[in-house]
Amino acid sequence: MNAQQLQELLEDVREGRTPVNAALASLRDLPFEDLGFAKVDHHRALRHGMPEVILGQGKQPEQAAAIAKALLAKSPNLLLTRATAEMAERVVALTPDAEHFPLSRVVRVWRDRTILGKGKIAAICAGTSDLPVLEEARLTAEVMGNEVETICDVGVAGIHRLLDQRGRLGEARVAIVCAGMEGALPSVVGGLVGCPVIAVPTSVGYGASFNGLAALLGMLNSCASNVTVVNIDNGFGAAYVASLINRL
Amino acid sequence: MNAQQLQELLEDVREGRTPVNAALASLRDLPFEDLGFAKVDHHRALRHGMPEVILGQGKQPEQAAAIAKALLAKSPNLLLTRATAEMAERVVALTPDAEHFPLSRVVRVWRDRTILGKGKIAAICAGTSDLPVLEEARLTAEVMGNEVETICDVGVAGIHRLLDQRGRLGEARVAIVCAGMEGALPSVVGGLVGCPVIAVPTSVGYGASFNGLAALLGMLNSCASNVTVVNIDNGFGAAYVASLINRL
Amino acid sequence: MNAQQLQELLEDVREGRTPVNAALASLRDLPFEDLGFAKVDHHRALRHGMPEVILGQGKQPEQAAAIAKALLAKSPNLLLTRATAEMAERVVALTPDAEHFPLSRVVRVWRDRTILGKGKIAAICAGTSDLPVLEEARLTAEVMGNEVETICDVGVAGIHRLLDQRGRLGEARVAIVCAGMEGALPSVVGGLVGCPVIAVPTSVGYGASFNGLAALLGMLNSCASNVTVVNIDNGFGAAYVASLINRL
Amino acid sequence: MNAQQLQELLEDVREGRTPVNAALASLRDLPFEDLGFAKVDHHRALRHGMPEVILGQGKQPEQAAAIAKALLAKSPNLLLTRATAEMAERVVALTPDAEHFPLSRVVRVWRDRTILGKGKIAAICAGTSDLPVLEEARLTAEVMGNEVETICDVGVAGIHRLLDQRGRLGEARVAIVCAGMEGALPSVVGGLVGCPVIAVPTSVGYGASFNGLAALLGMLNSCASNVTVVNIDNGFGAAYVASLINRL
Amino acid sequence: MNAQQLQELLEDVREGRTPVNAALASLRDLPFEDLGFAKVDHHRALRHGMPEVILGQGKQPEQAAAIAKALLAKSPNLLLTRATAEMAERVVALTPDAEHFPLSRVVRVWRDRTILGKGKIAAICAGTSDLPVLEEARLTAEVMGNEVETICDVGVAGIHRLLDQRGRLGEARVAIVCAGMEGALPSVVGGLVGCPVIAVPTSVGYGASFNGLAALLGMLNSCASNVTVVNIDNGFGAAYVASLINRL
Amino acid sequence: MNAQQLQELLEDVREGRTPVNAALASLRDLPFEDLGFAKVDHHRALRHGMPEVILGQGKQPEQAAAIAKALLAKSPNLLLTRATAEMAERVVALTPDAEHFPLSRVVRVWRDRTILGKGKIAAICAGTSDLPVLEEARLTAEVMGNEVETICDVGVAGIHRLLDQRGRLGEARVAIVCAGMEGALPSVVGGLVGCPVIAVPTSVGYGASFNGLAALLGMLNSCASNVTVVNIDNGFGAAYVASLINRL
Amino acid sequence: MNAQQLQELLEDVREGRTPVNAALASLRDLPFEDLGFAKVDHHRALRHGMPEVILGQGKQPEQAAAIAKALLAKSPNLLLTRATAEMAERVVALTPDAEHFPLSRVVRVWRDRTILGKGKIAAICAGTSDLPVLEEARLTAEVMGNEVETICDVGVAGIHRLLDQRGRLGEARVAIVCAGMEGALPSVVGGLVGCPVIAVPTSVGYGASFNGLAALLGMLNSCASNVTVVNIDNGFGAAYVASLINRL
Amino acid sequence: MNAQQLQELLEDVREGRTPVNAALASLRDLPFEDLGFAKVDHHRALRHGMPEVILGQGKQPEQAAAIAKALLAKSPNLLLTRATAEMAERVVALTPDAEHFPLSRVVRVWRDRTILGKGKIAAICAGTSDLPVLEEARLTAEVMGNEVETICDVGVAGIHRLLDQRGRLGEARVAIVCAGMEGALPSVVGGLVGCPVIAVPTSVGYGASFNGLAALLGMLNSCASNVTVVNIDNGFGAAYVASLINRL
Repeated sequence: MNAQQLQELLEDVREGRTPVNAALASLRDLPFEDLGFAKVDHHRALRHGMPEVILGQGKQPEQAAAIAKALLAKSPNLLLTRATAEMAERVVALTPDAEHFPLSRVVRVWRDRTILGKGKIAAICAGTSDLPVLEEARLTAEVMGNEVETICDVGVAGIHRLLDQRGRLGEARVAIVCAGMEGALPSVVGGLVGCPVIAVPTSVGYGASFNGLAALLGMLNSCASNVTVVNIDNGFGAAYVASLINRL
Repeated sequence: MNAQQLQELLEDVREGRTPVNAALASLRDLPFEDLGFAKVDHHRALRHGMPEVILGQGKQPEQAAAIAKALLAKSPNLLLTRATAEMAERVVALTPDAEHFPLSRVVRVWRDRTILGKGKIAAICAGTSDLPVLEEARLTAEVMGNEVETICDVGVAGIHRLLDQRGRLGEARVAIVCAGMEGALPSVVGGLVGCPVIAVPTSVGYGASFNGLAALLGMLNSCASNVTVVNIDNGFGAAYVASLINRL
Repeated sequence: MNAQQLQELLEDVREGRTPVNAALASLRDLPFEDLGFAKVDHHRALRHGMPEVILGQGKQPEQAAAIAKALLAKSPNLLLTRATAEMAERVVALTPDAEHFPLSRVVRVWRDRTILGKGKIAAICAGTSDLPVLEEARLTAEVMGNEVETICDVGVAGIHRLLDQRGRLGEARVAIVCAGMEGALPSVVGGLVGCPVIAVPTSVGYGASFNGLAALLGMLNSCASNVTVVNIDNGFGAAYVASLINRL
Repeated sequence: MNAQQLQELLEDVREGRTPVNAALASLRDLPFEDLGFAKVDHHRALRHGMPEVILGQGKQPEQAAAIAKALLAKSPNLLLTRATAEMAERVVALTPDAEHFPLSRVVRVWRDRTILGKGKIAAICAGTSDLPVLEEARLTAEVMGNEVETICDVGVAGIHRLLDQRGRLGEARVAIVCAGMEGALPSVVGGLVGCPVIAVPTSVGYGASFNGLAALLGMLNSCASNVTVVNIDNGFGAAYVASLINRL
Repeated sequence: MNAQQLQELLEDVREGRTPVNAALASLRDLPFEDLGFAKVDHHRALRHGMPEVILGQGKQPEQAAAIAKALLAKSPNLLLTRATAEMAERVVALTPDAEHFPLSRVVRVWRDRTILGKGKIAAICAGTSDLPVLEEARLTAEVMGNEVETICDVGVAGIHRLLDQRGRLGEARVAIVCAGMEGALPSVVGGLVGCPVIAVPTSVGYGASFNGLAALLGMLNSCASNVTVVNIDNGFGAAYVASLINRL
Repeated sequence: MNAQQLQELLEDVREGRTPVNAALASLRDLPFEDLGFAKVDHHRALRHGMPEVILGQGKQPEQAAAIAKALLAKSPNLLLTRATAEMAERVVALTPDAEHFPLSRVVRVWRDRTILGKGKIAAICAGTSDLPVLEEARLTAEVMGNEVETICDVGVAGIHRLLDQRGRLGEARVAIVCAGMEGALPSVVGGLVGCPVIAVPTSVGYGASFNGLAALLGMLNSCASNVTVVNIDNGFGAAYVASLINRL
Repeated sequence: MNAQQLQELLEDVREGRTPVNAALASLRDLPFEDLGFAKVDHHRALRHGMPEVILGQGKQPEQAAAIAKALLAKSPNLLLTRATAEMAERVVALTPDAEHFPLSRVVRVWRDRTILGKGKIAAICAGTSDLPVLEEARLTAEVMGNEVETICDVGVAGIHRLLDQRGRLGEARVAIVCAGMEGALPSVVGGLVGCPVIAVPTSVGYGASFNGLAALLGMLNSCASNVTVVNIDNGFGAAYVASLINRL
Repeated sequence: MNAQQLQELLEDVREGRTPVNAALASLRDLPFEDLGFAKVDHHRALRHGMPEVILGQGKQPEQAAAIAKALLAKSPNLLLTRATAEMAERVVALTPDAEHFPLSRVVRVWRDRTILGKGKIAAICAGTSDLPVLEEARLTAEVMGNEVETICDVGVAGIHRLLDQRGRLGEARVAIVCAGMEGALPSVVGGLVGCPVIAVPTSVGYGASFNGLAALLGMLNSCASNVTVVNIDNGFGAAYVASLINRL
């Protein structure tokens, strides 16, 4: 509610077009539903163009299911990430349209498949072990209304595998690049394409990878200027931002 | 050069339309100029839509000046970041159009002021001490052809200052948010706007800020889904990506 | 025992009002009971106005039960935090008044429900996943004699949810704010209220949250001046200090 | 502005007691003065009971002086922390009442010396090298209207020095404890007193003190339950919160 | 494919000796087999003189088995490292020649036992707990065609055990040294031999070993100039490089 | 073997008192027994006055048992630390004199109970949760021939509990102090006693204790000059050094 | 003051042998002199057998000089460590017996040269760059009444240099070992000698030495059981403990 | 001296061919010259095939000069790394053949220019700012008798610049790759060549590069198997090992 809308509301009140109680309600009743342990935001789609997504991690299975139920009452699609097995079972039981992806721990209801993005999102990963993060990104981007092109196993130590994909890379409007270990792939991809690159460090690796820290630091220090970074293993976040960009 | 272009080139060679030497040249002569200590990339503008930018840090003043001279020979605009005083002096001496911004340590030549971005970029900072990073971002976004709206001193501990700017925030097509200390501003801005937010942790703070690490970690863990992150104090990088997005 | 009391004691000895043995005892017999593996402090209530609390972590179930038994012999209330399931079972078996809260791993005996605090303590958390820490704080503050107002799921990325609670926030004499991920909530709350804010970083998050380190650093660097911080997930400690403040 | 005040304002507008423009102003004109590079908050005293304080670090000397001038126009007292020598010189030049404390890098104007705190604040430090942080805390607490009792050089390796001060410790309503190196003093003080203890890790030490990190971690892990922690060297923040508590 | 080969190919096209389609294929068809989730690189042996090795970590058992099957179709030998029990079972089932080494979690097919190295590789470990890493190194070096001399339990705190092995050390053309805890062994060995030493920090230790970080840092700071380092527990990598060196 | 002994040996050889073969043997046959995977050092008692101790961690149960068997053949006493349950079972089966201490994961054979230390070793711990480390220290010190005085649950937040033990503290010739969390106890003990204090950080704590790192850093930065430090949870090492000191 | 002394004092009071005032004084007047900013402890020699030492770091020059003057009034010897040039100048001016050692930044007055240690202390360093720390240790050990044997430049990468010193090593009753970089020397020395070894990590090194962290971690993880560790560059602390041990 | 040589020496003594004194000398007189503060190792060339190199860092200028003088007395070549300006001046004054390279802080005497390496060493760096480390590597490799091919400014974000150098890369027998920021270059080079790659992380970068830590971690986690790593900025060490390899 910006200044102009406020002025109009106040004028409506003065003119008696809007009663005080109604004005008060419209100023106070913020657009969420209170479940007690959670405040479900039904208007996020209005504000951000995206339905609310449930981060399963740290929630009790019954909490996640209750939030999912509340969201499904108002939205055709649903995305639940980092679901435990029990949580997934409960949410899948809510509707026959729900699908569980165990590799990425995602539960998705994808009834409204309208394409909202103006171009393709390229979703790229360095190695086979990065696939769970790539899948979370792909599932998110799809449910957000994007066409997604996935390119797998193109790590920088075999640069010819990546160069072989330059055609597909060049068609992307925005790229998501997932890599663990040294996390060098976004820099190389960033140099090959002219579009924004969203780098996702993955926790793939061992020893001095420190559960993705090495990849994260590498990506933050990328010498390619078109690279921004999200949290380790945050395929969802990368796809969310890529979707926003792809709608512009 | 993708597969189709390669096929065309090969067919040209077969048909004699392109001599072997010329084809060889077009395949081999990569678009950079070799200064010995540096390979200047004149075609970046073609590939990425942006002229090459000089990162002054770690370079000798005469190296930076030589690269700047080579770039100015082919490009109307120039951006040199993290310039030392001596380096700035040398580059400013190259052309009367060069301007030195000591706060952000930027030298800029901005002759071609064509607007290339489709909307406004909001450049926001939490406190007065973040201004050097904000300035680097603004100068970069401008030279890349964007209209920039700056909003200063709207740290989260005085949330009303930020809320007062909601109108201007709402007009942005992409937002750059610079903050040090706890780095919370991007999360709050991210919740207020629906556009992509590029978070820039700054090294502002002391003690347990660990030169920007606290802000960096905070931004990577943002609970707002539309936030991506660049390196500490990397106002340039944030503006570069924001420019790419704003052209889409 | 300060200098004046010491002088009085010595004068009592000189005058024969107190025999040497008794004086010796009152000087030596410090107010704890020695269980061998633990020294139970019955006089903490006298010194600090709070009964001793058992930190279950790292203790054997039978050790925790023995300490609980010793404390229950002299105190109507009991608080055991970070209890394992087996430990909780043993302590609950000591008295029918004991209650086990599995989410927060607390066992509590709350017979004496006298209100000792002069106002309300607001206990606030950013997301549903922070509820275990919030519950530990609430249970502690209650058993310490406080009226507690809980406010849940008001993370900074949906700032309107928090602003909607300004009325309740304004009534607090001291606030406890639990948040994981970027840990930004205490800064925003700190700006909205004039009372002391005790920030509790939680281990909620993944990747670069480093089990609460990101939130901890964020809170330590808060730009709101009325914020102090306790250890990660230390809901108990926050409530303990809040109780002390609320009695002033 | 809470819901009730909003209702009253709206009713005033409806009844014509308040014109739309005036209501708009009172809703929009947030209580700060915009200097361009900074938004000076004159109403903080109303909201938080404390005048705004200037953190000198990271600001240009002329920026700090401009903010100081704006604040002095409306407030009898002024506090500027972490002032560089040049900055201090500029601010001291604004008024003959300004005093510069080079050890703690504070500039203070202390015209209104009303006592607002209900009791004494004990400000304690472990060693001589912690004195700059202690001084920042003392100057802050004084200008905030508190009586401050300072106790120096009572590090835990000579526990008798501290025990000798138990009488003075016992008179405090809230204690600030500054310590570097292993940062153990707050735990010991916390056990000796029943009041809230605000621990300030200092950057005093060398080697594995890592500029105060060791002390910070020690304090966060204090086995005394009445201890909360602020950032390394943040004497100001500790005194600010202690002042809030002392007014309760 | 270097410039000369490119010229020859182009001339072949011009002269009609190579049709456009064939040239296109030889330029585009990079030497890997695409399994969808992985691109198997059969020509690595040509490029690097070593068959591709499967890093089991992070892969699904069926993925590892599929890659193994594809490799075994073209190569007599196979190396799978960091295999889970289930993964090992699946790969061992592919051929009776496969051998599973549970201590080091390696599966190996070693049919072609040609010696390719010109001398001996010494594989040394500091303590019994380092044996899994040493075994991974030995199995790798053997399948790469080297004669390996293993020397165990010669930690630096019993320097005479190591000195007793000087004869065998002196015969090595390259040495692999595995050590956990303080990781000092490579420095001592480096001083005793004149050949290159590849240091492998192991995660053996506890407390401040931080899972191998202490050993890693120690080795990176070795005062012996002939030491280079690989990742924690990376016996495979050390043996791979040692094999390359031993073929020179 | 120092220069003088070498000279004597050489003279014996020259004079024919020692045959070449015998001299060679005495120079080459270093005093260990080679089990292949381990070199058992029977002469450590000669060199260091202590029998070799088996660190169970990282060893296979059968390896530990084989080393134990070899040592028991030549030594009346045996100490195995960090034994897994299976490892303990195997070693206990070797002799009816073996005793298993599950809390500290120690297996001990203590037949020769000669007192070798000249005074008492005080073994002190801050809290009940530190008891496993204290027990490892006590068992070690006893088997090394020392009288051990244990003092438990004297954390610094209840300083009177510790001061109550000053008499017993004063009788120690060397003190071992185990503490987790903030690790402040060694500093306080160090100030109370004049003897060497060996500090053992324990991994007791949570959150920002980082598994003992906070305690470790605290102890390394102790303001008491008579404190040295061993690795986190290394009760054995502390007792080993305390034993060496107590024999002086 | 232990329980027995307390009983005697009380009996003296009862019998009138000690007046109340005198008893009060002896209980209250702890043995330090209060300089305001510092409490000088003259009785440390009584309690710990060592005069108080001034740590110059973080003190103002005039503070250090005032403390030195107070100590010199009661003690023949003086040790000031980490003195700045200005601080050293002021303290040297106090007495012609004062000597300044710029390499180690020590000022020493060494009038009473009584030997109190029962044997020799070996002070060993790995490289030339470790000499400042070694000197601090030597100067401390000497002023504490010890005969010190220094052994320099015996880093582990040239193990023969160290083995050549085995005779001198064997004569030590306690050893101090200073090393930077990988910090391996204490482990090797620990294996060669049977006496306690006090390891001093130095900040010598670059890159991944992280100012001594690598050496510190290495020493804490030493596989030699007779090694304890002090803070980085803490030559003083090592010598202090070595002196305590050498007096036993 | 191995067992066989020892036997021969002993037999010589028995037969009277070698007097006891002479044998003693040959056993004791280790091949170094003792300057007091340093033991200069003249026989390193015999043992390791390389003259001793002086690491200037942490040494006093006069110490470095004295060591240089001693080495020059026996060796035609000299290498001093990390020389301060004053140190360089003193060493350059020793001989007209000495050359100072201020960019890399190296002083070199290169009289004997015999080529000892069997092939070329490629020395590659990612950016202009890495040149100082590259120069240290080149100067070292040259003085060690190698032909060095340098390739500059081929960072991975402009992969075509690197691919353009594949011909020169392919000719190397061993490669040194210096890179700061994300440190990705060694992985890409490692995939392009079949020879050993020695990766040198440089401290080039800012913010989350943490002075080379990001590059170091990236290189340790390289997905290219032929990569080993040396310390940050350790161009000397990389060249030393490359020289050893190139002589094989």
